[in-house]
Amino acid sequence: MKPDSEAKETGRVEAFSDGVFAIAITLLGFTFKVPSAAGAHLATALAASWPALLAFVTSFMTIGILWINHHRLFTHIRKVNHSLLLLNGFLLMTITMVPFATTILAEYLGRPGERTAAIVYSGLFVLVTISFNVLWRYSSRRLRLLDRSVDRRTIRRINLQYGFGPLAYLISSGIAFVNVWASLAANILFAAFFALPAFDWDDRAAPSNDDRA
Amino acid sequence: MKPDSEAKETGRVEAFSDGVFAIAITLLGFTFKVPSAAGAHLATALAASWPALLAFVTSFMTIGILWINHHRLFTHIRKVNHSLLLLNGFLLMTITMVPFATTILAEYLGRPGERTAAIVYSGLFVLVTISFNVLWRYSSRRLRLLDRSVDRRTIRRINLQYGFGPLAYLISSGIAFVNVWASLAANILFAAFFALPAFDWDDRAAPSNDDRA
Amino acid sequence: MKPDSEAKETGRVEAFSDGVFAIAITLLGFTFKVPSAAGAHLATALAASWPALLAFVTSFMTIGILWINHHRLFTHIRKVNHSLLLLNGFLLMTITMVPFATTILAEYLGRPGERTAAIVYSGLFVLVTISFNVLWRYSSRRLRLLDRSVDRRTIRRINLQYGFGPLAYLISSGIAFVNVWASLAANILFAAFFALPAFDWDDRAAPSNDDRA
Amino acid sequence: MKPDSEAKETGRVEAFSDGVFAIAITLLGFTFKVPSAAGAHLATALAASWPALLAFVTSFMTIGILWINHHRLFTHIRKVNHSLLLLNGFLLMTITMVPFATTILAEYLGRPGERTAAIVYSGLFVLVTISFNVLWRYSSRRLRLLDRSVDRRTIRRINLQYGFGPLAYLISSGIAFVNVWASLAANILFAAFFALPAFDWDDRAAPSNDDRA
Repeated sequence: MKPDSEAKETGRVEAFSDGVFAIAITLLGFTFKVPSAAGAHLATALAASWPALLAFVTSFMTIGILWINHHRLFTHIRKVNHSLLLLNGFLLMTITMVPFATTILAEYLGRPGERTAAIVYSGLFVLVTISFNVLWRYSSRRLRLLDRSVDRRTIRRINLQYGFGPLAYLISSGIAFVNVWASLAANILFAAFFALPAFDWDDRAAPSNDDRA
Repeated sequence: MKPDSEAKETGRVEAFSDGVFAIAITLLGFTFKVPSAAGAHLATALAASWPALLAFVTSFMTIGILWINHHRLFTHIRKVNHSLLLLNGFLLMTITMVPFATTILAEYLGRPGERTAAIVYSGLFVLVTISFNVLWRYSSRRLRLLDRSVDRRTIRRINLQYGFGPLAYLISSGIAFVNVWASLAANILFAAFFALPAFDWDDRAAPSNDDRA
Repeated sequence: MKPDSEAKETGRVEAFSDGVFAIAITLLGFTFKVPSAAGAHLATALAASWPALLAFVTSFMTIGILWINHHRLFTHIRKVNHSLLLLNGFLLMTITMVPFATTILAEYLGRPGERTAAIVYSGLFVLVTISFNVLWRYSSRRLRLLDRSVDRRTIRRINLQYGFGPLAYLISSGIAFVNVWASLAANILFAAFFALPAFDWDDRAAPSNDDRA
Repeated sequence: MKPDSEAKETGRVEAFSDGVFAIAITLLGFTFKVPSAAGAHLATALAASWPALLAFVTSFMTIGILWINHHRLFTHIRKVNHSLLLLNGFLLMTITMVPFATTILAEYLGRPGERTAAIVYSGLFVLVTISFNVLWRYSSRRLRLLDRSVDRRTIRRINLQYGFGPLAYLISSGIAFVNVWASLAANILFAAFFALPAFDWDDRAAPSNDDRA
């Protein structure tokens, strides 16, 4: 429909995005606070920092899954235009905020304010998953930026899976109002669910048998 | 005019630059300060940190746009020489200071010192955009380092657009003396303006129709 | 055995992993704390921070060796599937925690809590090396994801060398209960041992003579 | 002399090294401390942080030049062996310590302890440049790892230039005992000197005329 630039230029966009994903996921390591040596027993202090471990693992899994999905998206996207760069930029902006939200969660779990922390945390992932959907819908609409060989079934399947994301995190945001731990458990479940082999990132493969043995 | 080295060696320069851009943009996440758990209500504390969000979003947009423009520059640049490496290095040095200027702005907005913070912030982008212009002018003068196929119209168009950058940030620096918020609004407007499809990064494409629908 | 996707897609996985390794290894620089200028004599303060230097060097060597081994693994791995991405993600998660464990060690060496710090430190590398083994065993089992040209001898050799890793760090974790310094010395020895030319990363080469002269 | 592995595998080593260089250079941005909003006049506080700017610019220039030289080295190096990986790893370890040394310098310039800070700073670059020399000498000896087309003149020229590095920083370390500012000035001069076009990174080009106009 539109005379978009045809050049296969996704390489540098992917590399830049990978950079941001890799840095954000590694900065999650700062979720852990080093207990002051002047303070109490180290073992006690470390044991008390299990919320940091929980928040770290949840965020690491989630960003990891998101990266795999970003990777997957760009196996289908062949063309880059200005709008794609902007939409991808917005997605990366939300990813960049994840280490902050994770530290908030780690700091407040089990203390007053944990509800707010859990809502902010899940709420950020609502934003992340919405921006993922917008990026994909924009790219796939009338095959705008896709490889022409992508079939409609694959697109519909991704539409369905991605559409589930914002819904899932909206639910876990809602749960956080009632019970913070249930909300966190939901987030871990979502990440685990998206990590299932059924969501194989390579849609070009034949429908694979279950990969677990 | 000069016997510059002809090798197409831009790959590693682009990768290094992308690395610095990606790290700087991700470090913007540190603009947000985690409110101490010992302190007041988390929701109140987060609500009070809207200046951080504003500064973060403005800087993220701006670095994002700058990255797109850097990307665009190097679709035209074919050759690398020592001077290009130095000019590009100076540009990256200014980019590396953006997270610091952003944190200053986030910390001081709405407090005494906000004027200084806003001037430093816009002033840094004057430097950034000037170094962008110097890099481009040096590379494009007599097609020194450009792909021979780049036409004069494209070069003139980039000259014009890039030349606008330092002027814009000089103006917003000036506005900061009068009104900090107007200055910040100007910076957001500049980023949004540069993000318009008219500034399509791929000049090799035919002049495209408006990409919005 | 399983209809895994055949595509040679290891490039982006390697690049992402390299990113995480490079960031984690560079963040080790934060192991060093800048002594407050308001405090005592700088030379004294720096001299007192030798535990940080020791912890930094040990971790840098270890992550470096792990990166070389990751590199080596992917000279053999040709195919990527969903499970590989997850196993690799788990490995990267453990790597991301190394700067934290290193700072803990740097902070507590020579103080109460040093035993806990040393156990946590070596314990983390038990996890790291186990996840390395799981990644390799999964990929190499029945040549699942390997280059078909890899011979059985190479696989057995890697099996043997990698299998030594968790054992080594279990031992140094155990030693930490008795003597923290012996445990740290063991960790340095392990890194030096793995750095020996005998563990040449390029298994495709003919068995090389000793590379030292 | 030695049956080193012949594979052209420098790509991933270069990418990893570039990553570490790019992260270290971007982390220099943390040299700047954000003055506490509770404190004094922001303009005064920023004006007082000129040592941070000086240290930042010096380190940025120096790491930038080092990266260009690393780049240049690997235009000649064709082969990777285990020892190269270790020597390169040692070089990267010294680079990783630069942000720390820079912050020390920024913190102590103009205060008691500035002498120690300046000696540590220049001393680190002695280490950096020595490891550069070892890497190059090992790779170039009897053309061990070089492109066979590199001529002896180029090697001798690099030998000479690189050999100057440790000497230069030893001198500036010595100067620091007498005068901190002269030492810092020497460091800036060294960086500027190495940035001269005469040290054109592309030795394959014909001897170029002066590139300045």
